[in-house]
Amino acid sequence: MEYGPSKFANKKKMRGKKMVEENKPDKATIIVHSGDMDKIYSALIVANGALSMGMEASLYFTFWGLQRLQKGGLEKGPLSKMHFLGLGKSMIKSRMKKANVASLEHLFKDFKELGGKVIACEMTMEIMGVSKEDLDQNLIDEYGAVGTYVNEARDSKITLFI
Amino acid sequence: MEYGPSKFANKKKMRGKKMVEENKPDKATIIVHSGDMDKIYSALIVANGALSMGMEASLYFTFWGLQRLQKGGLEKGPLSKMHFLGLGKSMIKSRMKKANVASLEHLFKDFKELGGKVIACEMTMEIMGVSKEDLDQNLIDEYGAVGTYVNEARDSKITLFI
Amino acid sequence: MEYGPSKFANKKKMRGKKMVEENKPDKATIIVHSGDMDKIYSALIVANGALSMGMEASLYFTFWGLQRLQKGGLEKGPLSKMHFLGLGKSMIKSRMKKANVASLEHLFKDFKELGGKVIACEMTMEIMGVSKEDLDQNLIDEYGAVGTYVNEARDSKITLFI
Repeated sequence: MEYGPSKFANKKKMRGKKMVEENKPDKATIIVHSGDMDKIYSALIVANGALSMGMEASLYFTFWGLQRLQKGGLEKGPLSKMHFLGLGKSMIKSRMKKANVASLEHLFKDFKELGGKVIACEMTMEIMGVSKEDLDQNLIDEYGAVGTYVNEARDSKITLFI
Repeated sequence: MEYGPSKFANKKKMRGKKMVEENKPDKATIIVHSGDMDKIYSALIVANGALSMGMEASLYFTFWGLQRLQKGGLEKGPLSKMHFLGLGKSMIKSRMKKANVASLEHLFKDFKELGGKVIACEMTMEIMGVSKEDLDQNLIDEYGAVGTYVNEARDSKITLFI
Repeated sequence: MEYGPSKFANKKKMRGKKMVEENKPDKATIIVHSGDMDKIYSALIVANGALSMGMEASLYFTFWGLQRLQKGGLEKGPLSKMHFLGLGKSMIKSRMKKANVASLEHLFKDFKELGGKVIACEMTMEIMGVSKEDLDQNLIDEYGAVGTYVNEARDSKITLFI
């Protein structure tokens, strides 16, 4: 399995890092398991908020979340519930525009400019039969397995599963 | 966007707080994104458990979760899955009563009495076209954006997204 | 309610533990609220990754998650979304096999051998009318309420709600 010790190339690096932990900025590490539009919004808004306040932020996209990293897939997620006060997805999008909520594309751009890191789950890629060519390379910083995630998360002040 | 630095009125206050961090009680900060009945139960039970054990607790209601803060909306959430061992929502409620599990209203009352804090997400209110008058003021302590959340969460021992 | 102070038998023990906190390994504590197959995978893979890297890990099974601890229930969870790139559950399972992803049974075995702890939620058992005899005793280390969870989580580096 992919959590086997042999795969943790970063293990040593992480241990070295721990010794200077006090001087590092706080970090938020979020697993994006869901591909639902509203949950991707929550993940990016929290991450961008953390970055804006001087924290680091990493998003680990896995399972349905990884689908949003496919070329052209970012805005394609469904709502996690059919109705939001009786509103469907297009109605929500138009209301978001009115409320000056940025598009996911824009939020992602902000995330990258603020220094956020996106990790794509290799195991999900293997299951889905998806190659790097199928994914939007502009969105992804790194490909990793659970060891990559644990390294990020164990040093984080905020850990979420979305 | 609402995570812009200009909106973080509490930034300074938070930094001041950090200097006395050692003397503060542990905290749990939970994003309540879901409006499903069973997930609202989980959020309140964890929060009340934390409060009972001397911790602080904050619940940040956003997206579908915010619907539960509308007047009369607390008990109106669906189950996150259609069947719980083949049981529907009314059956679950009657079984909960038999197992001496308190109603959401009662759990919320306990939460407030134990000193818990409820934050309502302003962005969701704007998207939904919902005003403060539409929300149950007895439930809400504060209105905030992601900066409010990050301030709470970065100092917390337990951070969850529900 | 089950979060009342009177039930926290471990309270003192926990406080004693805090004094030697520096020498303890990092910990990951995960609430498994969902019974969906893909989410059980995420929970176990994260937990096993943490254990493999020298951390402790606890899984607290509640609500739909607890159904997976029933005798023969482990592999019975549905997918959290109907389609995964158009694939149903059996297709996903066959693809996982091809990608050398272990079965849930195997992941659970690894989890136990690596020293992970499984806690079953007593409140859910009462609601469901399920007894210890209905649950797979090989999977469970402990029966507990929210106080048990909070004790684990407040000392953890990684806290997730899945």
